[in-house]
Amino acid sequence: MKIETIRLNVSSGERHRLRTQIHEELRVVAVVLLMLLGLGFATFVQAAQTLRGSGDLAVIVERTSGAVQIVETSGNSAVGRVGGLGDLSHASVVYSRDQRYAYVFGRDGGLSKVDLLTQRLVKRVIQSGNGIGGAISQDGRLVAVSNYQPGGVRVFDATSLAPVADIAAEYAPGRLSKVVGLVDAPGQRFVFSLWDAGEIWMADMREPNRPVVRRFKDIGKHPYDGLITPDGRYYIAGLFGEDGMALLDLWHPDRGVRRVLSGYGKGEQVLPVYKMPHLEGWAVAGERAFVPAVGHHAVLVMDTHDWREVGRIPVHGQPVFVMARPDGRQVWVNFAHPRNDTVQVIDTDTLQVVNTLKPGKGVLHMEFEPRGEEVWVSVRDADQVQVYDTASARLRTTLSAAKPSGIFMSARAHRIGL
Amino acid sequence: MKIETIRLNVSSGERHRLRTQIHEELRVVAVVLLMLLGLGFATFVQAAQTLRGSGDLAVIVERTSGAVQIVETSGNSAVGRVGGLGDLSHASVVYSRDQRYAYVFGRDGGLSKVDLLTQRLVKRVIQSGNGIGGAISQDGRLVAVSNYQPGGVRVFDATSLAPVADIAAEYAPGRLSKVVGLVDAPGQRFVFSLWDAGEIWMADMREPNRPVVRRFKDIGKHPYDGLITPDGRYYIAGLFGEDGMALLDLWHPDRGVRRVLSGYGKGEQVLPVYKMPHLEGWAVAGERAFVPAVGHHAVLVMDTHDWREVGRIPVHGQPVFVMARPDGRQVWVNFAHPRNDTVQVIDTDTLQVVNTLKPGKGVLHMEFEPRGEEVWVSVRDADQVQVYDTASARLRTTLSAAKPSGIFMSARAHRIGL
Repeated sequence: MKIETIRLNVSSGERHRLRTQIHEELRVVAVVLLMLLGLGFATFVQAAQTLRGSGDLAVIVERTSGAVQIVETSGNSAVGRVGGLGDLSHASVVYSRDQRYAYVFGRDGGLSKVDLLTQRLVKRVIQSGNGIGGAISQDGRLVAVSNYQPGGVRVFDATSLAPVADIAAEYAPGRLSKVVGLVDAPGQRFVFSLWDAGEIWMADMREPNRPVVRRFKDIGKHPYDGLITPDGRYYIAGLFGEDGMALLDLWHPDRGVRRVLSGYGKGEQVLPVYKMPHLEGWAVAGERAFVPAVGHHAVLVMDTHDWREVGRIPVHGQPVFVMARPDGRQVWVNFAHPRNDTVQVIDTDTLQVVNTLKPGKGVLHMEFEPRGEEVWVSVRDADQVQVYDTASARLRTTLSAAKPSGIFMSARAHRIGL
Repeated sequence: MKIETIRLNVSSGERHRLRTQIHEELRVVAVVLLMLLGLGFATFVQAAQTLRGSGDLAVIVERTSGAVQIVETSGNSAVGRVGGLGDLSHASVVYSRDQRYAYVFGRDGGLSKVDLLTQRLVKRVIQSGNGIGGAISQDGRLVAVSNYQPGGVRVFDATSLAPVADIAAEYAPGRLSKVVGLVDAPGQRFVFSLWDAGEIWMADMREPNRPVVRRFKDIGKHPYDGLITPDGRYYIAGLFGEDGMALLDLWHPDRGVRRVLSGYGKGEQVLPVYKMPHLEGWAVAGERAFVPAVGHHAVLVMDTHDWREVGRIPVHGQPVFVMARPDGRQVWVNFAHPRNDTVQVIDTDTLQVVNTLKPGKGVLHMEFEPRGEEVWVSVRDADQVQVYDTASARLRTTLSAAKPSGIFMSARAHRIGL
């Protein structure tokens, strides 16, 4: 800035004018500088407020308001809310590898990228007419969405959400299948199942816009969901109304898909599609899997070596989610309507129910903190999320949330298949 | 700010003085405002630069310069360096649960808290004369350091580094033992071993300044290190010059400590203390543990059910670290001097060495990215850290680092026992 020398050798009238002018100019300069300073400071304060680690963040889906609430799990408090995410009646979330961004997959085919640190919607694309789930590639560069309509998997650049690949689930000329059970797998792969075709597909994404797809046919009728074991080795698809499940060993794809868990689901009444159990509700803890018994008030215990039933634990209702605490010592179970006001805790060592909690009507989901000291429980009808100490099963904190459903912690970024 | 009206009804000499004075005052005002503006802007820019997720950060110990280098694993680049951390010739690192802070434990008893986002040393305490390792509690609120001198474990508040508890390893009146093998365990516990006493201690920290310590005596002579299985259930202490190892089932502490791995280390030459193998170099992958064979060019394969040897894989030299890729399909092995220029990759399915790499002299440590797509290798004598694609074993990136040793990724925050 340059300050002009002021000429004072002037008439009285001019003096007055000049005095006023100097006065005004000084004001303008001062005001502009103060505004700039204030702007810089405000932006700094905002940046400083959001300068925080992202490892203890989580999002809670508020299913009826098209929003996610961002929370932190160190002090158990709300951080912010991001809306405008469309239909979240069936939503899931994956995380960028730096844990800054959450990718939210909505029922309406919407794919939204949310910045957890600034609490802003960065980008949103409607990528299909009807989406059902998503996954992020091992290297974090690709986000995939599985679609009912048009049936297939669409792959996007994780940074820009620009389309990268479109894998149409065309199992016969002109016929596209609904896609379910999409997961990421080691080796930069996506694995998913074709409801209409009875197939499992494995897509190698090492060249992102040239996916190499391997098809496994005749795996059984109507796969309705899939899961991958925590080590990323086994992909298991549930079969609708058929006996057993379809298992693919991703270490040995040449050996093909084989049927396991014979007797599981056999002879059960065929349920309407919207009530099909989620396989995310399976807990694989060490050499055992804890599995909701379809249509029974029981949790089944399976041996993961041969996928046979080795135990059956009577519980309060029909289990929905059977979640293992990260150390594998407990599984927490919630239940289907009308018994969805209850959560039970099973000791995996004794196979006994050791605690029965009543969080309230509409317990929809549970998520453990990554080292298992606390678990977050969404209670839809109470508009609450409750945080429990897992050692004592005591309630520690209650947070407000509008009709909360899924809870997703950012630690998922570091896990295979989540 | 208030601008004074300027009186111009003055003599010529006064006019000049006044003109100069106004000139000067304007200058001062402008300069001060500009300085403030610049300061605010600079701080804003700094804060904005550091506004980033913390899930893909890591620190690399630069052992001879008392510094850590901060890097990020998405683009594989250097982020910053923090020095003044004392003697890091034997250093380890744990992370805060939000992954913002790294706690660095030095050989000199120094405990340093480093802010990864601002790249600053937040706090440093010299907590003993000779430290050997550290751990962070399950809930992230307590940081513990194990000491040789004075023998014991000191516990600090993770936020302030204020002392919280001092567990003297007094195994007999007036006699303190060196403490080794300190780990965190589920249930807000720390577990560690007493070199001089031949004991394992388990400290319950639920009341932080009133630790409840349980002692397990006569576990074997001179435990030299300990490890905890990834699920936090089994604590295993290595025994110096004795047959086998000491195992404590933390699910059933009442059953006491039992001896496992009979034959492991038996009849081996007693090595000088500074060459004792690190048990961090054990890879537990599913139901198998891959273990360095003491004094042999072999990796042992153990069954984790009964801790018996089920295989022996010939390798290039005496293994130091045997690290499992997160999906368990590979283990990567480095070797003791003079064969420390080599890394070998074992396929855990076939138990064959499938790759032999030559990163250079002085390969000291390896760390996998949390979903296993890349591995970081420190090569001391080349002053390099090399990043390999684990699927192809091809070198992807090389970064400069001054005599790098340990590499610690922030994803450790979410793991039990790390």
